[in-house]
Amino acid sequence: MQTITTEALTATAFAPFGDVLEAAGDFRLINAGLCKRHHDRARIDTGDARTGISIFNAEPRALPYAFDLIERHPEGSQAFVPMTEHRFLVIVASSPADTPRAFLTNGAQGINLHRGIWHGVLTPLHAPGLFAVVDRIGDTPNLQEYRYPQTWTVIAG
Amino acid sequence: MQTITTEALTATAFAPFGDVLEAAGDFRLINAGLCKRHHDRARIDTGDARTGISIFNAEPRALPYAFDLIERHPEGSQAFVPMTEHRFLVIVASSPADTPRAFLTNGAQGINLHRGIWHGVLTPLHAPGLFAVVDRIGDTPNLQEYRYPQTWTVIAG
Repeated sequence: MQTITTEALTATAFAPFGDVLEAAGDFRLINAGLCKRHHDRARIDTGDARTGISIFNAEPRALPYAFDLIERHPEGSQAFVPMTEHRFLVIVASSPADTPRAFLTNGAQGINLHRGIWHGVLTPLHAPGLFAVVDRIGDTPNLQEYRYPQTWTVIAG
Repeated sequence: MQTITTEALTATAFAPFGDVLEAAGDFRLINAGLCKRHHDRARIDTGDARTGISIFNAEPRALPYAFDLIERHPEGSQAFVPMTEHRFLVIVASSPADTPRAFLTNGAQGINLHRGIWHGVLTPLHAPGLFAVVDRIGDTPNLQEYRYPQTWTVIAG
Protein backbone atom coordinates (compact mmCIF):
# COMPACT_ATOMS: atom_id res chain seq x y z
CA MET A 1 0.00 0.00 0.00
CA GLN A 2 1.34 3.40 -0.97
CA THR A 3 0.52 6.08 1.57
CA ILE A 4 0.38 9.86 1.44
CA THR A 5 0.52 11.89 4.63
CA THR A 6 -1.66 15.00 4.93
CA GLU A 7 0.02 18.40 4.97
CA ALA A 8 -1.37 21.62 6.40
CA LEU A 9 -2.83 23.81 3.64
CA THR A 10 -0.83 27.02 3.26
CA ALA A 11 -0.78 29.53 0.42
CA THR A 12 2.92 28.91 -0.17
CA ALA A 13 2.70 25.12 -0.28
CA PHE A 14 -0.41 25.24 -2.46
CA ALA A 15 0.86 27.88 -4.91
CA PRO A 16 1.83 25.40 -7.66
CA PHE A 17 -1.77 24.15 -7.72
CA GLY A 18 -3.99 27.09 -6.94
CA ASP A 19 -5.09 29.74 -4.47
CA VAL A 20 -6.02 29.41 -0.81
CA LEU A 21 -9.18 31.41 -0.04
CA GLU A 22 -8.86 32.63 3.53
CA ALA A 23 -9.01 35.79 5.65
CA ALA A 24 -5.25 36.28 5.67
CA GLY A 25 -2.93 38.96 4.42
CA ASP A 26 -3.86 42.40 3.12
CA PHE A 27 -7.36 43.74 3.45
CA ARG A 28 -9.42 46.91 2.94
CA LEU A 29 -11.67 48.07 5.73
CA ILE A 30 -15.21 48.63 4.40
CA ASN A 31 -18.67 49.20 5.87
CA ALA A 32 -17.57 51.90 8.33
CA GLY A 33 -14.71 49.74 9.54
CA LEU A 34 -16.86 46.75 10.44
CA CYS A 35 -15.72 44.46 7.61
CA LYS A 36 -12.33 43.42 6.26
CA ARG A 37 -12.27 42.78 2.50
CA HIS A 38 -9.43 40.47 1.47
CA HIS A 39 -9.66 41.46 -2.16
CA ASP A 40 -9.52 39.33 -5.28
CA ARG A 41 -7.89 36.17 -3.97
CA ALA A 42 -8.55 33.68 -6.78
CA ARG A 43 -7.10 33.43 -10.26
CA ILE A 44 -10.36 32.62 -12.00
CA ASP A 45 -9.89 31.47 -15.58
CA THR A 46 -12.92 30.14 -17.39
CA GLY A 47 -11.71 30.97 -20.86
CA ASP A 48 -14.39 32.28 -23.19
CA ALA A 49 -17.23 30.72 -21.17
CA ARG A 50 -19.26 32.08 -18.26
CA THR A 51 -18.22 31.84 -14.64
CA GLY A 52 -20.97 30.46 -12.42
CA ILE A 53 -21.73 29.35 -8.89
CA SER A 54 -23.00 25.84 -8.23
CA ILE A 55 -23.74 24.17 -4.90
CA PHE A 56 -22.14 20.77 -4.23
CA ASN A 57 -23.37 18.43 -1.54
CA ALA A 58 -20.86 15.60 -1.13
CA GLU A 59 -20.80 12.51 1.06
CA PRO A 60 -18.25 12.82 3.86
CA ARG A 61 -15.22 10.53 3.72
CA ALA A 62 -12.86 9.48 6.51
CA LEU A 63 -9.12 9.01 6.96
CA PRO A 64 -7.43 6.77 6.03
CA TYR A 65 -8.88 7.54 2.60
CA ALA A 66 -8.09 5.37 -0.42
CA PHE A 67 -8.33 6.58 -4.01
CA ASP A 68 -7.03 5.71 -7.45
CA LEU A 69 -8.64 8.42 -9.59
CA ILE A 70 -7.67 12.00 -10.32
CA GLU A 71 -9.24 14.42 -12.75
CA ARG A 72 -8.70 17.83 -14.28
CA HIS A 73 -10.63 20.50 -16.10
CA PRO A 74 -8.63 21.67 -19.12
CA GLU A 75 -10.95 24.58 -19.84
CA GLY A 76 -11.25 26.29 -16.48
CA SER A 77 -10.32 26.92 -12.89
CA GLN A 78 -12.54 25.57 -10.11
CA ALA A 79 -12.99 27.08 -6.66
CA PHE A 80 -14.41 25.22 -3.65
CA VAL A 81 -15.77 27.31 -0.78
CA PRO A 82 -16.92 25.25 2.22
CA MET A 83 -20.25 26.46 3.67
CA THR A 84 -19.23 25.02 7.03
CA GLU A 85 -16.28 25.37 9.42
CA HIS A 86 -15.22 21.77 8.86
CA ARG A 87 -11.82 20.76 7.52
CA PHE A 88 -11.71 19.02 4.16
CA LEU A 89 -9.14 17.11 2.18
CA VAL A 90 -7.56 18.52 -0.98
CA ILE A 91 -5.74 16.02 -3.18
CA VAL A 92 -3.67 17.40 -6.04
CA ALA A 93 -0.90 16.19 -8.34
CA SER A 94 1.56 17.96 -10.61
CA SER A 95 1.02 15.21 -13.16
CA PRO A 96 -0.20 11.61 -13.20
CA ALA A 97 3.46 10.54 -13.07
CA ASP A 98 4.05 12.31 -9.76
CA THR A 99 3.09 11.25 -6.26
CA PRO A 100 -0.13 13.09 -5.33
CA ARG A 101 -0.19 15.45 -2.36
CA ALA A 102 -2.95 15.67 0.23
CA PHE A 103 -3.61 18.98 1.97
CA LEU A 104 -5.89 19.38 4.97
CA THR A 105 -7.69 22.72 5.38
CA ASN A 106 -7.92 24.41 8.76
CA GLY A 107 -11.70 24.88 8.78
CA ALA A 108 -11.61 28.49 7.55
CA GLN A 109 -10.16 27.98 4.07
CA GLY A 110 -11.45 27.39 0.58
CA ILE A 111 -9.35 26.70 -2.50
CA ASN A 112 -9.27 27.67 -6.14
CA LEU A 113 -7.69 25.05 -8.38
CA HIS A 114 -6.00 26.63 -11.35
CA ARG A 115 -7.05 25.60 -14.84
CA GLY A 116 -5.83 22.16 -15.77
CA ILE A 117 -4.55 21.11 -12.33
CA TRP A 118 -4.95 17.40 -11.57
CA HIS A 119 -6.97 16.83 -8.39
CA GLY A 120 -9.00 14.27 -6.47
CA VAL A 121 -12.76 14.46 -6.24
CA LEU A 122 -14.30 16.64 -3.53
CA THR A 123 -13.60 15.00 -0.17
CA PRO A 124 -15.25 16.55 2.86
CA LEU A 125 -14.46 14.81 6.15
CA HIS A 126 -17.63 15.83 7.99
CA ALA A 127 -21.32 16.23 7.21
CA PRO A 128 -22.75 18.32 5.71
CA GLY A 129 -20.34 18.27 2.77
CA LEU A 130 -21.72 21.54 1.48
CA PHE A 131 -19.67 23.74 -0.86
CA ALA A 132 -20.17 26.64 -3.23
CA VAL A 133 -18.21 25.94 -6.40
CA VAL A 134 -17.14 28.72 -8.74
CA ASP A 135 -16.24 27.29 -12.10
CA ARG A 136 -16.80 27.32 -15.83
CA ILE A 137 -20.34 27.01 -17.11
CA GLY A 138 -20.25 25.58 -20.59
CA ASP A 139 -21.47 22.80 -22.82
CA THR A 140 -18.20 20.96 -23.34
CA PRO A 141 -17.23 17.99 -21.12
CA ASN A 142 -14.19 19.90 -19.72
CA LEU A 143 -13.11 16.77 -17.85
CA GLN A 144 -10.13 14.43 -18.11
CA GLU A 145 -9.66 11.51 -15.75
CA TYR A 146 -6.64 9.40 -14.89
CA ARG A 147 -6.78 6.13 -12.99
CA TYR A 148 -3.58 5.10 -11.21
CA PRO A 149 -2.43 1.48 -11.61
CA GLN A 150 -2.49 1.25 -7.80
CA THR A 151 -4.43 2.69 -4.90
CA TRP A 152 -3.12 5.58 -2.80
CA THR A 153 -4.07 5.81 0.85
CA VAL A 154 -4.14 9.17 2.60
CA ILE A 155 -3.28 9.07 6.30
CA ALA A 156 -3.38 11.85 8.89
CA GLY A 157 -0.14 13.82 9.18
CA MET B 1 -39.23 53.76 15.64
CA GLN B 2 -40.01 51.97 12.39
CA THR B 3 -39.53 48.23 12.62
CA ILE B 4 -39.03 45.48 10.05
CA THR B 5 -39.72 41.88 10.96
CA THR B 6 -37.40 39.19 9.60
CA GLU B 7 -38.73 36.76 6.99
CA ALA B 8 -37.42 33.30 6.18
CA LEU B 9 -35.19 33.37 3.09
CA THR B 10 -36.76 31.42 0.24
CA ALA B 11 -35.96 31.44 -3.45
CA THR B 12 -39.45 32.62 -4.30
CA ALA B 13 -39.56 35.49 -1.82
CA PHE B 14 -36.04 36.57 -2.76
CA ALA B 15 -36.49 36.35 -6.54
CA PRO B 16 -37.03 40.11 -7.08
CA PHE B 17 -33.64 40.76 -5.48
CA GLY B 18 -31.38 37.86 -6.37
CA ASP B 19 -30.65 34.15 -6.12
CA VAL B 20 -30.60 31.89 -3.08
CA LEU B 21 -27.55 29.62 -3.15
CA GLU B 22 -28.56 26.37 -1.48
CA ALA B 23 -28.61 22.61 -2.03
CA ALA B 24 -32.20 22.55 -3.20
CA GLY B 25 -33.96 21.59 -6.41
CA ASP B 26 -32.46 19.81 -9.38
CA PHE B 27 -29.01 18.29 -9.26
CA ARG B 28 -26.63 16.11 -11.26
CA LEU B 29 -24.97 13.19 -9.53
CA ILE B 30 -21.18 13.36 -10.04
CA ASN B 31 -18.10 11.65 -8.60
CA ALA B 32 -19.51 8.12 -8.86
CA GLY B 33 -22.74 9.16 -7.22
CA LEU B 34 -21.11 10.60 -4.11
CA CYS B 35 -21.78 14.28 -4.87
CA LYS B 36 -24.85 16.24 -5.92
CA ARG B 37 -24.14 19.20 -8.19
CA HIS B 38 -26.85 21.87 -8.03
CA HIS B 39 -25.73 23.52 -11.22
CA ASP B 40 -25.33 27.20 -12.07
CA ARG B 41 -27.48 28.80 -9.40
CA ALA B 42 -26.43 32.46 -9.61
CA ARG B 43 -27.08 35.09 -12.25
CA ILE B 44 -23.59 36.55 -12.22
CA ASP B 45 -23.34 39.82 -14.12
CA THR B 46 -20.09 41.75 -13.84
CA GLY B 47 -20.42 43.53 -17.16
CA ASP B 48 -17.18 43.86 -19.09
CA ALA B 49 -15.03 43.43 -15.97
CA ARG B 50 -13.58 40.33 -14.32
CA THR B 51 -15.44 38.19 -11.82
CA GLY B 52 -13.40 37.50 -8.69
CA ILE B 53 -13.55 35.93 -5.26
CA SER B 54 -12.77 37.98 -2.18
CA ILE B 55 -12.95 36.96 1.47
CA PHE B 56 -14.95 39.18 3.84
CA ASN B 57 -14.56 39.03 7.60
CA ALA B 58 -17.35 41.09 9.20
CA GLU B 59 -18.16 41.92 12.79
CA PRO B 60 -21.24 40.06 14.02
CA ARG B 61 -24.35 42.12 14.75
CA ALA B 62 -27.36 41.25 16.91
CA LEU B 63 -31.13 41.63 16.72
CA PRO B 64 -32.74 44.06 17.16
CA TYR B 65 -30.51 45.63 14.51
CA ALA B 66 -30.77 49.32 13.62
CA PHE B 67 -29.64 50.78 10.30
CA ASP B 68 -30.19 53.82 8.13
CA LEU B 69 -27.91 53.08 5.16
CA ILE B 70 -28.37 50.99 2.06
CA GLU B 71 -26.10 50.66 -0.94
CA ARG B 72 -25.99 49.22 -4.42
CA HIS B 73 -23.45 48.26 -7.05
CA PRO B 74 -24.62 49.55 -10.42
CA GLU B 75 -21.96 47.67 -12.35
CA GLY B 76 -22.27 44.16 -11.02
CA SER B 77 -23.94 41.38 -9.08
CA GLN B 78 -22.53 40.35 -5.70
CA ALA B 79 -22.74 36.89 -4.13
CA PHE B 80 -22.20 36.16 -0.44
CA VAL B 81 -21.34 32.59 0.53
CA PRO B 82 -21.07 32.02 4.29
CA MET B 83 -18.06 29.88 5.28
CA THR B 84 -19.94 28.81 8.41
CA GLU B 85 -23.29 27.21 9.22
CA HIS B 86 -24.52 30.37 10.96
CA ARG B 87 -27.61 32.30 9.90
CA PHE B 88 -27.11 35.83 8.64
CA LEU B 89 -29.33 38.79 7.93
CA VAL B 90 -30.03 39.97 4.38
CA ILE B 91 -31.52 43.45 4.06
CA VAL B 92 -32.76 44.50 0.63
CA ALA B 93 -35.03 47.17 -0.83
CA SER B 94 -36.75 47.56 -4.18
CA SER B 95 -35.88 51.26 -4.07
CA PRO B 96 -35.00 53.85 -1.42
CA ALA B 97 -38.68 54.88 -1.45
CA ASP B 98 -39.87 51.41 -0.39
CA THR B 99 -39.81 49.81 3.03
CA PRO B 100 -36.74 47.55 3.19
CA ARG B 101 -37.14 43.82 3.77
CA ALA B 102 -35.02 41.69 6.09
CA PHE B 103 -34.48 38.03 5.29
CA LEU B 104 -32.92 35.53 7.68
CA THR B 105 -30.97 32.63 6.16
CA ASN B 106 -31.35 29.09 7.49
CA GLY B 107 -27.64 28.41 8.05
CA ALA B 108 -27.15 26.56 4.77
CA GLN B 109 -27.82 29.36 2.29
CA GLY B 110 -25.83 32.00 0.46
CA ILE B 111 -27.23 34.73 -1.73
CA ASN B 112 -26.41 36.44 -5.00
CA LEU B 113 -27.66 40.01 -5.22
CA HIS B 114 -28.49 40.95 -8.77
CA ARG B 115 -26.77 43.93 -10.34
CA GLY B 116 -28.05 47.23 -8.99
CA ILE B 117 -30.15 45.84 -6.14
CA TRP B 118 -30.26 48.06 -3.02
CA HIS B 119 -29.07 46.20 0.08
CA GLY B 120 -27.76 46.65 3.58
CA VAL B 121 -24.15 46.01 4.49
CA LEU B 122 -23.06 42.47 5.32
CA THR B 123 -24.65 41.53 8.65
CA PRO B 124 -23.59 38.21 10.15
CA LEU B 125 -25.25 37.40 13.47
CA HIS B 126 -22.50 35.13 14.82
CA ALA B 127 -18.71 35.02 14.83
CA PRO B 128 -16.81 34.35 12.69
CA GLY B 129 -18.50 36.54 10.09
CA LEU B 130 -16.58 34.85 7.32
CA PHE B 131 -17.85 34.95 3.72
CA ALA B 132 -16.56 34.33 0.22
CA VAL B 133 -17.82 37.11 -2.02
CA VAL B 134 -18.09 36.69 -5.77
CA ASP B 135 -18.32 40.06 -7.43
CA ARG B 136 -16.95 42.46 -9.98
CA ILE B 137 -13.25 43.22 -9.89
CA GLY B 138 -12.68 46.62 -11.46
CA ASP B 139 -11.23 50.06 -10.92
CA THR B 140 -14.45 52.07 -10.81
CA PRO B 141 -16.15 52.87 -7.46
CA ASN B 142 -19.25 50.79 -8.41
CA LEU B 143 -20.99 51.97 -5.25
CA GLN B 144 -24.04 54.14 -4.55
CA GLU B 145 -25.27 54.78 -1.05
CA TYR B 146 -28.58 56.05 0.29
CA ARG B 147 -29.16 57.21 3.84
CA TYR B 148 -32.75 57.08 5.08
CA PRO B 149 -34.10 60.13 6.92
CA GLN B 150 -34.91 57.78 9.82
CA THR B 151 -33.57 54.60 11.37
CA TRP B 152 -35.06 51.19 10.65
CA THR B 153 -34.93 48.50 13.32
CA VAL B 154 -34.98 44.82 12.36
CA ILE B 155 -36.64 42.53 14.88
CA ALA B 156 -36.88 38.74 14.90
CA GLY B 157 -39.92 37.36 13.08
